[in-house]
Amino acid sequence: MAHQTEIQLPKFNRGIHLITHLIESELKKMQIGENGILHLFVKHTSAGITLNENADPSVRTDLNTFLNTIAPENQHIYTHTDEGADDMPAHIKTALIGNSVTLPITCGKLNLGTWQGIYFCEFRNHAQARRLILTLLT
Amino acid sequence: MAHQTEIQLPKFNRGIHLITHLIESELKKMQIGENGILHLFVKHTSAGITLNENADPSVRTDLNTFLNTIAPENQHIYTHTDEGADDMPAHIKTALIGNSVTLPITCGKLNLGTWQGIYFCEFRNHAQARRLILTLLT
Amino acid sequence: MAHQTEIQLPKFNRGIHLITHLIESELKKMQIGENGILHLFVKHTSAGITLNENADPSVRTDLNTFLNTIAPENQHIYTHTDEGADDMPAHIKTALIGNSVTLPITCGKLNLGTWQGIYFCEFRNHAQARRLILTLLT
Repeated sequence: MAHQTEIQLPKFNRGIHLITHLIESELKKMQIGENGILHLFVKHTSAGITLNENADPSVRTDLNTFLNTIAPENQHIYTHTDEGADDMPAHIKTALIGNSVTLPITCGKLNLGTWQGIYFCEFRNHAQARRLILTLLT
Repeated sequence: MAHQTEIQLPKFNRGIHLITHLIESELKKMQIGENGILHLFVKHTSAGITLNENADPSVRTDLNTFLNTIAPENQHIYTHTDEGADDMPAHIKTALIGNSVTLPITCGKLNLGTWQGIYFCEFRNHAQARRLILTLLT
Repeated sequence: MAHQTEIQLPKFNRGIHLITHLIESELKKMQIGENGILHLFVKHTSAGITLNENADPSVRTDLNTFLNTIAPENQHIYTHTDEGADDMPAHIKTALIGNSVTLPITCGKLNLGTWQGIYFCEFRNHAQARRLILTLLT
């Protein structure tokens, strides 16, 4: 059985943000107590979603710094420059990080490792609130 | 319910190609009007699949250039060189981009963001036509 | 229908390891002969999972070397340094490679390409045995 909902995330600044609590709250509303998977899909091309350490915020800072270093702005190799210097790097980072994750659900709850949290990655300087589709399959 | 089909893609040149229309056409044949997810799986180790901007083709050009820059050919660090200079970089790009995507399906249709398209990424210079498995779960 | 199991992998050294046979063995125990998808989820933030060439082990060596080159240790940009020089690079590699894969299942068996194998990527120097959740949806 598929249970699907589309939500609007809060408006986030450029950077990497923990959203595990938001997803847990949506999952609770679905009231499904079974095993399965939860698919989280970002409907945008310059924002990503991934999993990483939920404890020390310096991991989020450093991952963001790394991505800015590997896909810097204002490089002569970019030809897609009309939408701002942060746009093409944002598309590249989205391709590297990915725009969806699939998570195991056990008895209706996220079954993540102790140190795993869900990272929403906003790669644009001034983005609108982003949309996310949750699909639960049991 | 799982609905599965395996298709052969057209033979693509090295580079990044929009295949959203091909996937929509296969999905239509499945004639399933429900919610769920569609899993697209490339059965190869030197071609990838991802989502990104469907409008300006310069995004595809620049993503390809970026990947060629980050994983260049003829580097002294490569030991896997028997299958051509483009082979090991192609394996690396596949690992970075990924060889499958999972997409939300709403009422039997792809539910992508306005600017999202499906990118098939051919990383070899002279590849055969590639095979893709579509699995729809509702 | 969802069938789920959690397993402990063998303790692996830092590097990239083929685990296709381990997954096939777990899948056999599930005794499901239908079509669907298998989701493999690593419950850790410094180990990844991906698919790539199952034949020449030099592909695994070179992918590992590439990741060590792109995310080297002891860089001044890292602020998350308390858990060892290999820790922040391990988080970055996990974000680039991903910590889960979804695979097509046909008649109860993995339907991979001829040259595809499942790579478990251990990014820490001295990690404990890692945990993996398998969820089969048919």
